[in-house]
Amino acid sequence: MAERPRIGFAGLGIMGRPMARNLLRAGYPLTVWNRSPGPAQELAAAGAAVAGSPAQLAASADVVITMLRDTAAVEQVVLGDEGLLAGFQPGEIYVDMSSISPLATRRLAERLAARGVVMLDAPVSGGEVGAREGSLAIMVGGPAEALARVRPVLEVLGSRIVHLGEVGAGQVAKACNQLIVAVTIGAAAEALLLASAAGVDPARVREALLGGFAQSRVLDLHGQRMLAHQFAPGFRAALQLKDLAIASELGAATGVPLALTETARRLYGELVAGSGADLDHSGLLTLLERQAGRTLN
Amino acid sequence: MAERPRIGFAGLGIMGRPMARNLLRAGYPLTVWNRSPGPAQELAAAGAAVAGSPAQLAASADVVITMLRDTAAVEQVVLGDEGLLAGFQPGEIYVDMSSISPLATRRLAERLAARGVVMLDAPVSGGEVGAREGSLAIMVGGPAEALARVRPVLEVLGSRIVHLGEVGAGQVAKACNQLIVAVTIGAAAEALLLASAAGVDPARVREALLGGFAQSRVLDLHGQRMLAHQFAPGFRAALQLKDLAIASELGAATGVPLALTETARRLYGELVAGSGADLDHSGLLTLLERQAGRTLN
Repeated sequence: MAERPRIGFAGLGIMGRPMARNLLRAGYPLTVWNRSPGPAQELAAAGAAVAGSPAQLAASADVVITMLRDTAAVEQVVLGDEGLLAGFQPGEIYVDMSSISPLATRRLAERLAARGVVMLDAPVSGGEVGAREGSLAIMVGGPAEALARVRPVLEVLGSRIVHLGEVGAGQVAKACNQLIVAVTIGAAAEALLLASAAGVDPARVREALLGGFAQSRVLDLHGQRMLAHQFAPGFRAALQLKDLAIASELGAATGVPLALTETARRLYGELVAGSGADLDHSGLLTLLERQAGRTLN
Repeated sequence: MAERPRIGFAGLGIMGRPMARNLLRAGYPLTVWNRSPGPAQELAAAGAAVAGSPAQLAASADVVITMLRDTAAVEQVVLGDEGLLAGFQPGEIYVDMSSISPLATRRLAERLAARGVVMLDAPVSGGEVGAREGSLAIMVGGPAEALARVRPVLEVLGSRIVHLGEVGAGQVAKACNQLIVAVTIGAAAEALLLASAAGVDPARVREALLGGFAQSRVLDLHGQRMLAHQFAPGFRAALQLKDLAIASELGAATGVPLALTETARRLYGELVAGSGADLDHSGLLTLLERQAGRTLN
């Protein structure tokens, strides 16, 4: 691989677009592909080449990065007609930064290994702001030597890169992260609405609790969103539900009972089935408010 | 009230004993009462007077503090034969620092108000260490002027005193605190055991997650206890279950659905019904381990 590897980037959504821009800005030769052409044209205007298919993208690059919606989208882009698999050269590195099933990740890695391609899973935390600022937390699974080779690239995208183990380990950590975030959001929503319904100012309760064992970044940031009733995402409830399904699938596969995760999954399912899919995940409060027949403030 | 009010202290358990000692050390004239005489004798040796009943305690003091196990114990000590109510003088202040039902607290405050006694509820967070070090967080409900009068006393016991509103508001905040702590412990246990079962080092996952939105004091401190499998309390699972019942009761009374709290309550119920009552509340992990048929490490 050259000092500055050629990068192929597929998936120019809310997260992928600013990430690809940061790579361009850092001076990496960049080719992009996106299912709908608009975002690719936008990156082309900023200096990227545009590939006609994932296969062409893989053929033009030393390192391919994907940032896609879900497991099905990644499998389609890698394995589908004109997929990455059809264009990869032996020795290429494939970095999937989407949040998808760890089990599907391991299966993909096996398929790719048979073609001489090393796969890293590298899901992120930090949202759109982190993507714009290049300050994402990146959870990596896969061979250490492959991570060493792409680390300079990842350092453009994130400020905290943690290697968690073999391929899939990044997705496992991400699933753990997402289940904790969802359950903690639910706990904060229950506590703040309970305080309010019992006649106590939820803002004062949040403030008091941040000084003790109930402290969390969720109670701080998402709790503030709940008090302000500001549920523009942020991180969409529909994606939170998708990530809870991944944790749930992993629990079923490993025999670990996840009662709180399953409860949170049911609540997010109700929120999304209502009109809450596009709310920030802290908008889970609105489901509780509807059920309780009262609002927080 | 004199500059240094005479203090009566009832309930010399794990929390109450070091709190009473701190009051003695700070120079307050102190009378104590405890159901079993041993701990009272211990405080007597340190300079406290010993009352023969709660009524005598109330008669000897300007400010009475209770630190008791549960709602029933507080009601018994206040309203029972030879209870505090029989000895209180008009103008006395009663500070209940136990963690009990906010609804029962409001009922007690009404009974006491009819006798000219002001009640403050002032449950604490910070555990035995906080009690010893005088660094408890104290959540106060009740009239501001009564709090102003006892604030110097509370400042001996705690380092963070937050006034949350009318009587009962401290207990509401405490219930909110406890439901968040319990649910967050459960989420941390599910995540760490899931990571381990999926072949990823849970210590690395905890470390990675502490840098993101999943951060909490629980994931930090209780997560570390889980990794070390050290479940000496700390805060006993049986008391955690009691506090979840308080939150649940409040949810039922106010019509706020508490699905995650109820799930945590069921889990702690199973832990306590097994052999886990005296484990630290982070010992909830052991229930999941038993159900999964595997241990964390």
